[in-house]
Amino acid sequence: MAPSATQKNGHSGEQDLDLTSSAVEHRMAENVASDSNTIGAASNGVSQPNVHEIDASKLTYTFTQNPREPPALGITADNGNSICTDHMIIVKWSAKNGWATPELKPYGPLSLMPTASVLHYATECFEGLKAYRGYDGKLRLFRPDCNSERMLMSSVRISLPSFSPKELEKLIIALMSVDGPKWLPCDRAGSFLYLRPTMIGTHSQLGVQAPSEAMLYIICSYMPTMDSPAGGMKLHTSPNDMVRAWAGGFGYAKVGANYGPSLLATKEARARGYHQILWLYGTDGQCTEAGASNFFVVWKTREGKTQIVTAPLDDRVILAGVTRRSVLALARERLADEAEVVERKYTIDEVIEASADGRLIESFASGTAYFVCPISLIHHRGRDIQIPAGKGGEGAPITLRLKSWLVDIKYGRVEHPWGVVVPEEH
Amino acid sequence: MAPSATQKNGHSGEQDLDLTSSAVEHRMAENVASDSNTIGAASNGVSQPNVHEIDASKLTYTFTQNPREPPALGITADNGNSICTDHMIIVKWSAKNGWATPELKPYGPLSLMPTASVLHYATECFEGLKAYRGYDGKLRLFRPDCNSERMLMSSVRISLPSFSPKELEKLIIALMSVDGPKWLPCDRAGSFLYLRPTMIGTHSQLGVQAPSEAMLYIICSYMPTMDSPAGGMKLHTSPNDMVRAWAGGFGYAKVGANYGPSLLATKEARARGYHQILWLYGTDGQCTEAGASNFFVVWKTREGKTQIVTAPLDDRVILAGVTRRSVLALARERLADEAEVVERKYTIDEVIEASADGRLIESFASGTAYFVCPISLIHHRGRDIQIPAGKGGEGAPITLRLKSWLVDIKYGRVEHPWGVVVPEEH
Repeated sequence: MAPSATQKNGHSGEQDLDLTSSAVEHRMAENVASDSNTIGAASNGVSQPNVHEIDASKLTYTFTQNPREPPALGITADNGNSICTDHMIIVKWSAKNGWATPELKPYGPLSLMPTASVLHYATECFEGLKAYRGYDGKLRLFRPDCNSERMLMSSVRISLPSFSPKELEKLIIALMSVDGPKWLPCDRAGSFLYLRPTMIGTHSQLGVQAPSEAMLYIICSYMPTMDSPAGGMKLHTSPNDMVRAWAGGFGYAKVGANYGPSLLATKEARARGYHQILWLYGTDGQCTEAGASNFFVVWKTREGKTQIVTAPLDDRVILAGVTRRSVLALARERLADEAEVVERKYTIDEVIEASADGRLIESFASGTAYFVCPISLIHHRGRDIQIPAGKGGEGAPITLRLKSWLVDIKYGRVEHPWGVVVPEEH
Repeated sequence: MAPSATQKNGHSGEQDLDLTSSAVEHRMAENVASDSNTIGAASNGVSQPNVHEIDASKLTYTFTQNPREPPALGITADNGNSICTDHMIIVKWSAKNGWATPELKPYGPLSLMPTASVLHYATECFEGLKAYRGYDGKLRLFRPDCNSERMLMSSVRISLPSFSPKELEKLIIALMSVDGPKWLPCDRAGSFLYLRPTMIGTHSQLGVQAPSEAMLYIICSYMPTMDSPAGGMKLHTSPNDMVRAWAGGFGYAKVGANYGPSLLATKEARARGYHQILWLYGTDGQCTEAGASNFFVVWKTREGKTQIVTAPLDDRVILAGVTRRSVLALARERLADEAEVVERKYTIDEVIEASADGRLIESFASGTAYFVCPISLIHHRGRDIQIPAGKGGEGAPITLRLKSWLVDIKYGRVEHPWGVVVPEEH
């Protein structure tokens, strides 16, 4: 490797500061700019006509010969394993040829070499979104464009290939069109399925390097409802010896590397009787996320103004949740008269102080898994912060209103652009 | 889940500070304490006679029916894929039954459900060590006990099961006994194979939780020799927007989550003509690791004393490399008269200052992949730090001596307790 290094003497060094974000921006721009089904090569921007984009319109269908029966309502696992629907969608990628033809095929195991990149270097990212059977009989996805765009960002951050988010969205809808009618039938209004688009590095060469082969797949499973634990959700603040994510890291991306390392502290907290960790950041204990969800408090300022507060996205420490942004938008649109919406850094000490003053009104976690989940208690360094969470922990007024507005959109009680209807043949 | 939380009021909160390290210590102690082939349950310490430890003495052998030919000397990959030997060892684990019987079987693909924990949450860790064909004809591993112990620590940190490191070491030796004679034959003295013990979470349930099923496997492949790039290794310091690891994180563990996220900056640095990133930490720019290797400088103090300096392990930001500790031990033992060995935090500014004063004598990276690799240049914020690296970048005197001592041990030019001979039938 002939270093061009020594020719760079005298440069300001400015370009050395943002290696990551410039690489991310470069690769994402490539993709957005592409309006054909071929993409430019990542390294030099020269168009390579043989490197293909994902083309959802070319999806091939191989239907299962062994259809299974959907489980009874409320059953989500079989012997500790997720129950998935009959089919999955797979799209393979190689650096040489780009994306292959997307395939819908029977759900089943993947064959990976023991040397596959994903098994060693965590070259993996995913999304989670739900399909909702509406009270009007329609099947809806909630803002699948947001998940598809975030998946591109995560993929690029973890050195997996870029793709057109619009094509991913089409594939998600295609899978739901096939499996939705049977696995989330019309008599299950008010229920949901859980979609998991996933990308993994399949390149079978040991050595720390960006994979030159990868696979995108979409599967669909059941998931338990987790938004209403009896008595509300109880959090334990993160220990001093555990930081979830950090400025300059990758906390904002939905990559496996954010999850595995957090399991140990979460398990320890659960053994002590808490549902999730409230992740603090920095020496001042900034509140960031609750488990794998975004975290909100509702408090009154000393001047008596009601505020809905959550951590900001700007230092890229927290995940830009789809539920988070939807909650913020609805609150700004519909609660403007009674509450101010604030995205800012705030610390556990501020929360404790508000609680001591009787100014802490509500708290909730938001995310696809936990939806909008009332928080009733935060345990921090030997003390408990009690938070009003309504009768039986079912949620205080603002939490409940935000939640019901989202429920109405997801389950088709109201028409809203966030609810994307999946075409089905019945 | 009934929270025991509220009963904890009035506790000091001390126990809230070290959730992670206390969990790690607890789980590792369990294992060390175990001297039978059953282990106590992680959660309550009660012995469960049906939960089995790994028992290497029970290894079953299923030999390949399709033996392959080893590649020509120097060939390490086939069409971009690692070339592995005929066999691998697999041991499956479940929370319910513990470790199953270890199996040696033909090398081949793994079958994983698309919902497997490892593919979503990076529940994975690994080790890397080499088997060396000695000039005396013997096959040796270098300190496999160190790798096995570190694997336990990594496994526990990423919420994978614990095991007896001694049994892992025996399995590594067993695989080499079978595949060593053919894949690293006696006429290849001075060559090596690369062993990769790996553990992955196979539990097939979506949801952020510690996996209740896992698999340990050991594979053996070829790897290119990387310790002597022409002109020496050239490093680019990490950008401001990229931190590899952080205090309170998991930089000390060999988990996938440390690797995938680093690939983007590494690729960008390579595109600019550098071999690896020199990872800086903190606002003062502490030197931590070079790529996935430990980083050393040799300088003279202002008082004229020669020092061999590397980052300390105490804040758990860097990997406790086996080569690192071996280099330190040899330097302390054999270079005491001429150089002081120092493990301390030091910054890129100190390195720049030493260079400007003409006090920077040598630098090298140490690790299993890069072995002891001379560093000839560090690019930092627009400027190049040139470092003496001997003729053609082959290494300055201290680097070369440390390297040759290790070579002598690994390839059997001297007998040393670090060189563990693998029993072979010829």
